[in-house]
Amino acid sequence: MPVPFGSARLERLVKRLGRLPGIGSKSAARLALHLLYADESESEDLVDALRDVKQHVRPCSRCGSIAEAELCRICEDPRRDDRQLCVVAQATDVFTMERAAVFRGRYHVLGGLLSPLDGVRPEDLSLDALLDRVRDSGPEEIVLALSGSVEGEATALFIGQQLSEDPVRITRLATGIPVGGHLEFVDDVTLTRAFSARLPLS
Amino acid sequence: MPVPFGSARLERLVKRLGRLPGIGSKSAARLALHLLYADESESEDLVDALRDVKQHVRPCSRCGSIAEAELCRICEDPRRDDRQLCVVAQATDVFTMERAAVFRGRYHVLGGLLSPLDGVRPEDLSLDALLDRVRDSGPEEIVLALSGSVEGEATALFIGQQLSEDPVRITRLATGIPVGGHLEFVDDVTLTRAFSARLPLS
Repeated sequence: MPVPFGSARLERLVKRLGRLPGIGSKSAARLALHLLYADESESEDLVDALRDVKQHVRPCSRCGSIAEAELCRICEDPRRDDRQLCVVAQATDVFTMERAAVFRGRYHVLGGLLSPLDGVRPEDLSLDALLDRVRDSGPEEIVLALSGSVEGEATALFIGQQLSEDPVRITRLATGIPVGGHLEFVDDVTLTRAFSARLPLS
Repeated sequence: MPVPFGSARLERLVKRLGRLPGIGSKSAARLALHLLYADESESEDLVDALRDVKQHVRPCSRCGSIAEAELCRICEDPRRDDRQLCVVAQATDVFTMERAAVFRGRYHVLGGLLSPLDGVRPEDLSLDALLDRVRDSGPEEIVLALSGSVEGEATALFIGQQLSEDPVRITRLATGIPVGGHLEFVDDVTLTRAFSARLPLS
């Protein structure tokens, strides 16, 4: 059988690239060939950027979001509202929320969602840190901005139970039909919830 | 406005990744975050593999395919048939052909296809090297394995003209309906050609 690409070195690069999320074997091969034929400066720029991130970017020690220093820019910002704390699964969710520019409080990144099937238990998430933060800083409201999956629901329920004795209001993002979304593409569970939560036409 | 990701370093990595072919801004962000949270060893393995390829993998000096030495494995293989020369646009096409294991001759990689619109002229491809090889090694047949695009057609035509005086048979891959392909998905030009080239049922 012919050896694909005829170069063990190139094969190795394809294999490494293929381990990245969302990169299949064909994309990995295309990326590897692109990098092979690209200018030395392009590949070195990529290496520099990657190493720079690995060395200088870290989780914020308070909220778990992305930081270049001890604290992230949001935790350091004195203009943010300490009375609201938004709980998200991942650091990317912080930037999704920020893009919408609807929330001016602080964040807490759990680092995942509870999932007994995948072996993600409460102690694998920064749930204790969340409880400590709530008890230390005493926010008025915790907004759970978690996905509508089974794992998201389980995590929301767990947080609600843990904080049931605390004097904090816990809310969650509304479920419903996406703005601009066609009814025919909305799943039954979402539709049921949107129906239950129907509002008077104002 | 919020700063996306809150880290200029991470933004830089996203930007570099987003320049790779087939990687959009969302994929680039996902890759960057994966690499940020990945083990140091994973990112270093990737860097090593990339640098190793950039340093040791190069075009074969004879056929233009991928080589780790002066010549690629196919050019170095004495069992390949010198009487057939398969002309392809890119090095990847060599491995597509090899995967099918249908051709036992030698290859010649043009490095692209003629495209006046994109400014790719004959002197931008290794066409002179092809003519030299044909006149030096005197193959009996040149198989043009080029894509069915306008550029592929133009390149095939050009090669045919350049070699019209040479005692070499020039062939090209047949166009037609893909094996297992549904007729409804076949475009009109392919269908017209497949009809013109119809064969008796054997």
